[in-house]
Amino acid sequence: MSIPIDTFFLDPKFEGTLQQKIQRMISEGVLSARFPPGAKLPSSRKLAAHLGVSRITVTLAYSELVSDDYLIAKGRSGYYVSPTAPQRTRFDLPKTAGRDSVDWNRAIGQRYSNQIMPEKPVDWRTYPYPFIYGQADEKIFDHSNWRQCAMQALGKREFSIVTADSYERDDPELVKYIALNTLPRRGIHARPEQILITMGAQNALWLSAQVLLNQRRTAAMENPGYPGLRVALNLARCNVVSVPVDKDGMQLDALPGETDVVFTAPSHHCPTNVTMPLERRHALLEMAARHDFLIVEDDYEFEMSFLNPPEPALKSLDEEGRVIYVGSFSKSLFPGLRLGYMVGSETFIHEARALRAAILRHPPGHLQRTTANFLSLGHYDALVARMGQVYRQRREVMQTAIARCGLQTAGVDVSGGSSFWMKTPAPIDAQDLAAALKQRGVLIEPGHVFFEYPEDGSRYYRIAYSSIESAKIDAGITIIAETIDGFRHT
Amino acid sequence: MSIPIDTFFLDPKFEGTLQQKIQRMISEGVLSARFPPGAKLPSSRKLAAHLGVSRITVTLAYSELVSDDYLIAKGRSGYYVSPTAPQRTRFDLPKTAGRDSVDWNRAIGQRYSNQIMPEKPVDWRTYPYPFIYGQADEKIFDHSNWRQCAMQALGKREFSIVTADSYERDDPELVKYIALNTLPRRGIHARPEQILITMGAQNALWLSAQVLLNQRRTAAMENPGYPGLRVALNLARCNVVSVPVDKDGMQLDALPGETDVVFTAPSHHCPTNVTMPLERRHALLEMAARHDFLIVEDDYEFEMSFLNPPEPALKSLDEEGRVIYVGSFSKSLFPGLRLGYMVGSETFIHEARALRAAILRHPPGHLQRTTANFLSLGHYDALVARMGQVYRQRREVMQTAIARCGLQTAGVDVSGGSSFWMKTPAPIDAQDLAAALKQRGVLIEPGHVFFEYPEDGSRYYRIAYSSIESAKIDAGITIIAETIDGFRHT
Repeated sequence: MSIPIDTFFLDPKFEGTLQQKIQRMISEGVLSARFPPGAKLPSSRKLAAHLGVSRITVTLAYSELVSDDYLIAKGRSGYYVSPTAPQRTRFDLPKTAGRDSVDWNRAIGQRYSNQIMPEKPVDWRTYPYPFIYGQADEKIFDHSNWRQCAMQALGKREFSIVTADSYERDDPELVKYIALNTLPRRGIHARPEQILITMGAQNALWLSAQVLLNQRRTAAMENPGYPGLRVALNLARCNVVSVPVDKDGMQLDALPGETDVVFTAPSHHCPTNVTMPLERRHALLEMAARHDFLIVEDDYEFEMSFLNPPEPALKSLDEEGRVIYVGSFSKSLFPGLRLGYMVGSETFIHEARALRAAILRHPPGHLQRTTANFLSLGHYDALVARMGQVYRQRREVMQTAIARCGLQTAGVDVSGGSSFWMKTPAPIDAQDLAAALKQRGVLIEPGHVFFEYPEDGSRYYRIAYSSIESAKIDAGITIIAETIDGFRHT
Repeated sequence: MSIPIDTFFLDPKFEGTLQQKIQRMISEGVLSARFPPGAKLPSSRKLAAHLGVSRITVTLAYSELVSDDYLIAKGRSGYYVSPTAPQRTRFDLPKTAGRDSVDWNRAIGQRYSNQIMPEKPVDWRTYPYPFIYGQADEKIFDHSNWRQCAMQALGKREFSIVTADSYERDDPELVKYIALNTLPRRGIHARPEQILITMGAQNALWLSAQVLLNQRRTAAMENPGYPGLRVALNLARCNVVSVPVDKDGMQLDALPGETDVVFTAPSHHCPTNVTMPLERRHALLEMAARHDFLIVEDDYEFEMSFLNPPEPALKSLDEEGRVIYVGSFSKSLFPGLRLGYMVGSETFIHEARALRAAILRHPPGHLQRTTANFLSLGHYDALVARMGQVYRQRREVMQTAIARCGLQTAGVDVSGGSSFWMKTPAPIDAQDLAAALKQRGVLIEPGHVFFEYPEDGSRYYRIAYSSIESAKIDAGITIIAETIDGFRHT
């Protein structure tokens, strides 16, 4: 049987190169049993003419399909569907598919969807003025070297390391590089067994909370603070104390003595961007020793300290092993990578590693090795330097526009980072402002999600410059100012 | 200042190509401040002669270093360390680093390291006879197409999808492909909002347990059964009932009526490899309806059904939405990928998604898109077919050797898979056998880890053929038989 030429057409939904589209068209035909084993394919000349593509493209697709055993070549007589071609076992779909007679209100043993988290529009790229926080800027990222490092990690030499089930272990190359090169920049000295690779900082905070806290313990966090941390603490079912933040970070006199674990982002507080000065860092460590509590230090954005060198990490001042340090590659590489790390005493890391193994085994080997390559070849430092230059320039444009428009900032940022923390004139609600701005193509982040009581944050908002070009900034800030003016006059 | 030529040497620890080693040597020198801004590099001719490499290699390395702003080129006068080259902020390490005065016995709020998990030697590749389970075989894997799909996912077109923080969302391409192509092969019809991508099957089991169970609920699992599931159930702090397994899988008459959730691997039970026949599947579903319990179906290895087509999934027979289906790419692609998926009612998936977001956001975008590409181009089906052919042949060699040596099998496998479940002659303990075999270069898995009471499994062991070549199998099985004989005569 020959397969009629008319059954071949390139589905516009197919992605990839022309050759890939042809491969997919034929493999789909074989898998769906439309093209049965033994059936003869059109000659490459005929199919090329029919599809309006070059003959070599069809020939290359046929060769690939032969190597995947979809087709066999029989000398001059052409290509046939292989008698041993891949098949799909299909079952008739039950007629009842989609019915559901379970009482899910009863069946759910525990709810997780009732947490307040920032709403992040997935289509932010389509807005002309995305003052959105925490996304990678493809115009700055070192695309070609990342690709090269990813390729190297997929090479035959590293294949076994990258594809293996490593159980609870991490890529020793990445751990070694972090220990020898990344941590010393923060004044931190750690052995490999004191380091755990995590699925980003969120995963590290959750693991810390699960290991250190329980229903009888108390955690303290900054208010406002990182909403993902509040979720992680709620999941640990501990008592949570909110501690206010001033221009020097967490207010230590508001910290109750009976706290078991203090979570803080001293070098670049989220969302206000304030930095805790050295004296307060020492005071916090003294309090920790006096009251015997632990500290989890979230150092998620230290690489972005382009205005001033970052203050030494709390962990570097820690003489007693009380500090657990959390780092992340989400800001310096990209958030979709989902890689971070934490550093702490061996006993703690041992428990966190066991928990990580129980919930997901280990972060994927390929991503760990790609990152290790990118770091060790110096591309990472080059990228961070380039990001610092771009951010510094954008920050100046932001500052000038904010001043020109008379917008009110609400946090003092001495190190750099990628955002401004702002306040609306009373009584404008930042959620209303954000909704109005979205209509005009401007994305800002309303600040209520960072507060223990969202109403306390109703007038705050965050505007970031990590994903908006310099040339767009002034016009975007102008629209914010105009929209605020519009609210005042209605 | 010119940098003296003698300070340049290629550290043998550096990995990668010669050009990469040169780049790394220079970027390390700049980052460590040994090569200060403005310092002049040797000419490419001189450095090439000094290192004994070709001049073009040095020239290419210099150009790369210029594009990363480590160096600048000044026309004819050569290369200099860039005045804006990346820098590292270093702090002095505290003298006390590594001291620890925390009482960790008190500080740990919850322990996770006391779970019994299989011991998996990380160096299994160095053993001549690795009858080890669950690792990828690099000789079968479709390396070049995987690389191509990974490259495509890192292309400029898909970069933004792959690198973005997707919050709680999955790659729609991967979800779509699973819904339209993978699930129908198991008779399952699901909408995208009924599918969640997970970090492997372990992650799916843990998420299910966390959502469906709590301290007042009861879960049932097979005994013997998957140790990772027992860990996940312990973490949910529910009551766990162990249900014995016979040649047709879970024994339903031993299932208590007050169970809330039954966890089962009906198509390929772990570790015995037995398959639950259709009648018992129907009976289990009827029991579930009668006693109002849910079922989590672990279908981790259905692609490896090369002996007979797999039985329809429980989920395909489920007319009430009681079944949550768990699939994995660990066996069909490779375990280091850490990707799986689960299918269930929308309410359930909604809660599981919220929990996943709280602990790690989402599985990395690059891996999701690479897998979607590999699936949609037909490479996946081709790979599964090839693995089936290889496994079928290895299985025959295993069976012949096992019969020739008179070893006792302890499970009947009708579909295929990748391992045999075995029993030692009394009173030989399989852990002793494994230890003795390791000395002779043979790795087997003692079976006690699969049992509720490890002593019940003291005479069982598992031997897999997924990572051992056919040519090695007979000799390996012979050593197992000889070693067992040796135990009998001492």
